[in-house]
Amino acid sequence: MIFRSLQSLVMICLSVAMVMAQTTSAVQQKTLLGFDREGSDRERVLEKQFDSFLKKENLREWMKRLSARPHHLGSPYGKDNADFIAGLFRSWGYETEIERFDVLFPTPKTRLLEMTSPEKFTAKLEEPVVKEDATSGQKSEQLPVYNAYSVNGDVTGQLVYVNYGVPQDYEELERRGVDVKGKIVIARYGGSWRGIKPKVAAEHGALGCIIYSDPRDDGFFAGDVYPKGAWRNENGAQRGSVADMPLYPGDPLTPGIGATANAKRLEVKDAPTLTKIPVLPVSYGDALPLLRALEGPVAPAAWRGALPITYHIGPGRATVHLKLEFDFNIVPAYDVIARLRGNERPDEWVIRGNHHDAWVNGAGDPISGLVPMLEEARAVSELTKTGWRPRRSIIYAVWDGEEPGLIGSTEWAETHAQELQSKAVLYLNSDGNSRGFLFVAGSHTLEKFINDVARDVIDPEKEIAVFERARARAIITGDAEQRREARDRADLRINALGSGSDYTPFLQHLGIASLNIGYGGEAENDGIYHSIYDSFDHYIRFSDPTFDYGIALSKTGGRAVLRFAGAGYLPLAFSNFSDTIGRYVNEVTKLANDERDTIAEKNRRINEKTFEAVDDPTKTFVPPKAEPAAPYLNFAPLQNALARLQESTRNYDRAMVEATSGTRLQSSDVQQSLDDALRQVELAMITERGLPRRPWFKHQIYAPGFYTGYGVKTLPGIREAIEQHKWDEAGEQIGIVAATLEQTAAQIDRGTAILNTDR
Amino acid sequence: MIFRSLQSLVMICLSVAMVMAQTTSAVQQKTLLGFDREGSDRERVLEKQFDSFLKKENLREWMKRLSARPHHLGSPYGKDNADFIAGLFRSWGYETEIERFDVLFPTPKTRLLEMTSPEKFTAKLEEPVVKEDATSGQKSEQLPVYNAYSVNGDVTGQLVYVNYGVPQDYEELERRGVDVKGKIVIARYGGSWRGIKPKVAAEHGALGCIIYSDPRDDGFFAGDVYPKGAWRNENGAQRGSVADMPLYPGDPLTPGIGATANAKRLEVKDAPTLTKIPVLPVSYGDALPLLRALEGPVAPAAWRGALPITYHIGPGRATVHLKLEFDFNIVPAYDVIARLRGNERPDEWVIRGNHHDAWVNGAGDPISGLVPMLEEARAVSELTKTGWRPRRSIIYAVWDGEEPGLIGSTEWAETHAQELQSKAVLYLNSDGNSRGFLFVAGSHTLEKFINDVARDVIDPEKEIAVFERARARAIITGDAEQRREARDRADLRINALGSGSDYTPFLQHLGIASLNIGYGGEAENDGIYHSIYDSFDHYIRFSDPTFDYGIALSKTGGRAVLRFAGAGYLPLAFSNFSDTIGRYVNEVTKLANDERDTIAEKNRRINEKTFEAVDDPTKTFVPPKAEPAAPYLNFAPLQNALARLQESTRNYDRAMVEATSGTRLQSSDVQQSLDDALRQVELAMITERGLPRRPWFKHQIYAPGFYTGYGVKTLPGIREAIEQHKWDEAGEQIGIVAATLEQTAAQIDRGTAILNTDR
Repeated sequence: MIFRSLQSLVMICLSVAMVMAQTTSAVQQKTLLGFDREGSDRERVLEKQFDSFLKKENLREWMKRLSARPHHLGSPYGKDNADFIAGLFRSWGYETEIERFDVLFPTPKTRLLEMTSPEKFTAKLEEPVVKEDATSGQKSEQLPVYNAYSVNGDVTGQLVYVNYGVPQDYEELERRGVDVKGKIVIARYGGSWRGIKPKVAAEHGALGCIIYSDPRDDGFFAGDVYPKGAWRNENGAQRGSVADMPLYPGDPLTPGIGATANAKRLEVKDAPTLTKIPVLPVSYGDALPLLRALEGPVAPAAWRGALPITYHIGPGRATVHLKLEFDFNIVPAYDVIARLRGNERPDEWVIRGNHHDAWVNGAGDPISGLVPMLEEARAVSELTKTGWRPRRSIIYAVWDGEEPGLIGSTEWAETHAQELQSKAVLYLNSDGNSRGFLFVAGSHTLEKFINDVARDVIDPEKEIAVFERARARAIITGDAEQRREARDRADLRINALGSGSDYTPFLQHLGIASLNIGYGGEAENDGIYHSIYDSFDHYIRFSDPTFDYGIALSKTGGRAVLRFAGAGYLPLAFSNFSDTIGRYVNEVTKLANDERDTIAEKNRRINEKTFEAVDDPTKTFVPPKAEPAAPYLNFAPLQNALARLQESTRNYDRAMVEATSGTRLQSSDVQQSLDDALRQVELAMITERGLPRRPWFKHQIYAPGFYTGYGVKTLPGIREAIEQHKWDEAGEQIGIVAATLEQTAAQIDRGTAILNTDR
Repeated sequence: MIFRSLQSLVMICLSVAMVMAQTTSAVQQKTLLGFDREGSDRERVLEKQFDSFLKKENLREWMKRLSARPHHLGSPYGKDNADFIAGLFRSWGYETEIERFDVLFPTPKTRLLEMTSPEKFTAKLEEPVVKEDATSGQKSEQLPVYNAYSVNGDVTGQLVYVNYGVPQDYEELERRGVDVKGKIVIARYGGSWRGIKPKVAAEHGALGCIIYSDPRDDGFFAGDVYPKGAWRNENGAQRGSVADMPLYPGDPLTPGIGATANAKRLEVKDAPTLTKIPVLPVSYGDALPLLRALEGPVAPAAWRGALPITYHIGPGRATVHLKLEFDFNIVPAYDVIARLRGNERPDEWVIRGNHHDAWVNGAGDPISGLVPMLEEARAVSELTKTGWRPRRSIIYAVWDGEEPGLIGSTEWAETHAQELQSKAVLYLNSDGNSRGFLFVAGSHTLEKFINDVARDVIDPEKEIAVFERARARAIITGDAEQRREARDRADLRINALGSGSDYTPFLQHLGIASLNIGYGGEAENDGIYHSIYDSFDHYIRFSDPTFDYGIALSKTGGRAVLRFAGAGYLPLAFSNFSDTIGRYVNEVTKLANDERDTIAEKNRRINEKTFEAVDDPTKTFVPPKAEPAAPYLNFAPLQNALARLQESTRNYDRAMVEATSGTRLQSSDVQQSLDDALRQVELAMITERGLPRRPWFKHQIYAPGFYTGYGVKTLPGIREAIEQHKWDEAGEQIGIVAATLEQTAAQIDRGTAILNTDR
């Protein structure tokens, strides 16, 4: 995965059957969403059969094979893996092709980081071989430690420590009178997606950016280090993309269009998603001499990591020289696309994806998510041997180039945009898997559907449903209100999707309802993320030694695919969705009030010289600058649209109850019409012009944050305008989102009308 | 100071004059509490004159002299200092005596800490000489690093890390299936008063206790270490008492009575405040090899310090041998008592104290608090040369033996208990001082008085009143409600007193209204606390180089003493007090509800097997044990008593407004009667039988926590019963506290009656 997205997802937690019984009719309790009673029963039999085909030996064998050598985008073994995977699909009877794109993928020619003052030090930039790790010595094929899509650079400057390097950190620096202009910043990993760090550093005038892995976040502070334990050792470092993906993901040279052989390409120098300054990731072994040499103010307590030093901010005598040169090559990306044609509605596509490229060997990321999907696909193919065919078409997609920037998925989605928007009914993603709890995030029109799936998968460690286990965790970790919900709400909440894996082009660019699923939370696997130690040897010691959770993922993904492909009508539901939108509306309203109060409080402190009264005169402190008071915003259009959406939802639910009690929904034509209406509900949430300053992101409900990178911003147009104190824009965006919600309600009404015809 | 009590105090923060103008009459705005208008004007002239006598050169010279050699209880230089101080007072015309007590003070003969497995290591237990610190090399006179009132012991056992070693930490251990029985625990300093750590360890069956200074709390994590910076270096360690002072402070052999020459003494073996197990403090240099050798579960994130290791809990192969032997000697303690007789009400005593003993050189603790008090006393004596005499008697007390256990103050207070309860009107304490903000804690009947004082002292760095600076800090650090109060309430709140310095016997044993004052919060002085580096050289680099805040303390203490000694009637006020009691009543009511909910939630999780559903099966986790549901408590008696107290307060305020507008309060007899009534208000808050299981602590509003040591517990009888789930006892204590509040209200009514007579 391109980001550690699993951590940003709230688990789904699901209700006990008793609660279901109270909230839905007795008939529905027995039936699956989208099915009638008989269909439900047949479906459950089918799923039992499906389960019986799953073999965990396959997972182990395929992981060993696929992670045996480094297989990043453009590598020989990456191609080999794509061919191998395509061969598997073909052997299982899928109509399989490898779709190639030609994309920009820079790799380093020169990497030099040295401290020139107060003493000389040259960073090693090297992850050593570990004898307990069989693949760690494959030096000739490993990508070195670097950040992809950094620009070339040769810069020298005083060093400044900027904590996580997010905007708020620069406010702290300003408060202490520290300016990074003309300097080189060192930021620690964490607190945001890594690409935000050089972006914000450049916005503040820095010349270069170093990102290091502090042992507090994924090293010895967290646990014993590899190979004794699972965590990042002194020389472990984190590769990763720093392209400005919150602007647009995919090939930097072909925004919005597929990077096919003859596509019109930007020149590299014009590609807006490359960084503005050179950036390099290092281990804490390499960072320690630099950080130890820093002078200036002691860093705020929250900025201090686990290195055995006093963290200072700088600047001072510590001066570093950073020189980076890259080969800006165009390389082939190989997506494996395998199709199983639906026998009734072949032009409705259920798409299931996981990427195959890794930064190095990638046993955990992505192979641990990929092999359960392969096994799922194999078991589906076994079902076809019994004569079963899915009602809708199923497409298994195995993406290349996810790590550098969701490239394989984005280019494919852009190439086939029109067809996908008229045919895709679901994009279901996974990306890595380990022991623990089911995590789900995605479109809230799918919340009820995926709750149902999770009710039917048994946790291998606990022998209770995986949703029961997730629910228990929500009870243990939640506050009183979250506990109450976990116990009493019919379904438990899924989180919204920001970014970090291949769902982004489908959901946020094309408006296709999407989910991301995976197990985790018990394994210790953060410390080898994007390093050479993300290996088969590490995985089978620390992540899912028995592959039992791999099989749980096969069962989860398989059920979701089979149900979506087999349902009489699309298993979407809207009451959880409109409930969630209601929460978002409350959140942005509260956010506007909070920001207004914060500005007023700050201005009052400035006027009353409160900062001057408190600040220690023996240290440098600069009072913040006053800013214009925030206006009250007119949220009425949003509230009216929400009311309309809630009304539409209620009408749909009522119509559905009536329809399921009659015979009308048994008509294939009605089902097909309903599918067509339902499919377009998510499409109604996108706008052609997209979000301000980033038109590629068209979804009005979900987007990755422009300054968080993987953290989701819901109602992003409104929320980010408020966060950035762009009050006029916030007002405009309220109108746009309100219109989007009205449009969504109207689309739901079309479904209702179909259900109501002939009554 | 025996505890780092400054940190436990909330600063006082005070209102601007504008607010005062809105809330009090125009007359009162100009007058000081306890004075009429003319008296106020005279008092302000007197205070100006007082200020003019203060010389910061004296502070520097006395600090250098008093901290020139180690001067702990029983040391030659301690006696020398007492004589020197007594000489100063005599030279200023005070009636001065040195009062001697003979008290138990163990010093170490043998200190051995070694690891015997998995490898051999012997702790150095030695703070090295630092060439930049002139007194750090006085080895022959320094007390070694040890904890006073540890028992002898020679124990060997597996080592277990217990975080701060407070009861909650043992719940975490239990959850992980770790038992300390028969083992030796290692705890880090912080999170509670140090004496709690061996007490709780012994309650859980540990054989011995090691306490180390983690660099996260006062070492390199906080800032650069000594001598480069101010913080604790690798070999710095913290001496300190571990006697069970929440049971009773003072000489362990003479609980409740003065340790005079012929006092009846317990045998050492019967002294209940000695520890049950041997305990030794060490530096992190000595702790690191031990902690690094620990195996077993990784410690919870909140338990991990700043050492560059993965913190494990143990137990495992790491085994330590701890051997301690002490000389249990009786040594003399020398209190210096200096009196200035009041010319009108000599039998009303204003007592002002600070201790003189230190653990080693003690430039910061206690000399930085002592020398401003000496200068204050000198300036007061200068006033007498102008013919001025205080209305009431002033007693300056310079205590010995505070560090081992508030010994000098406690033995004096016990010896003179009856006289003090009939004569003392105020005990005003200080104990250390540095750059920063005014911190005040104490009796809330004094809140308005000390607010007035702080309005009239100018901050030397900012040239605004010290209360304006404190108010600004409350605005910066507070939440919305605290900010509102800091801006709008007439007076800002003072915190309640727990323990940690010499006010404890006066306030909590005798029921004398008390305050503790000092400046701090800007200096970096935590890292040398109770080490050989608490030196003159350290103080003038890092704490208050110019002694300007020493002079601010002289002005603050001097104003408080002069006003209290000179006021026409005692400057107590009760509306802030009853407001504060109302908050405490709300707190304990809410606490009872929260504990009830917590127990119910825990039991529900146990019944529903929520823990079992979540816990990682590859690790050891033990679900908590169910406990009986908590009953609802009858808080009505407390609420009725509070209502009565509020009514009495209103009546008093009304009577006072009327009295000050007439001539009656000009009568000396009336004033004397009123003084007598007001003096007994705080006395009404104590009960003869004291708190459950610790009868020495008699105050029903304020006590140090039995399991926090310095952290205050307000309404302690009720609060601790609820915290410990002793529901029957909580019910009884509600009755006792209610009766105490009724008694307090009745005493206020006596004052009201005096004001109202003849109307």
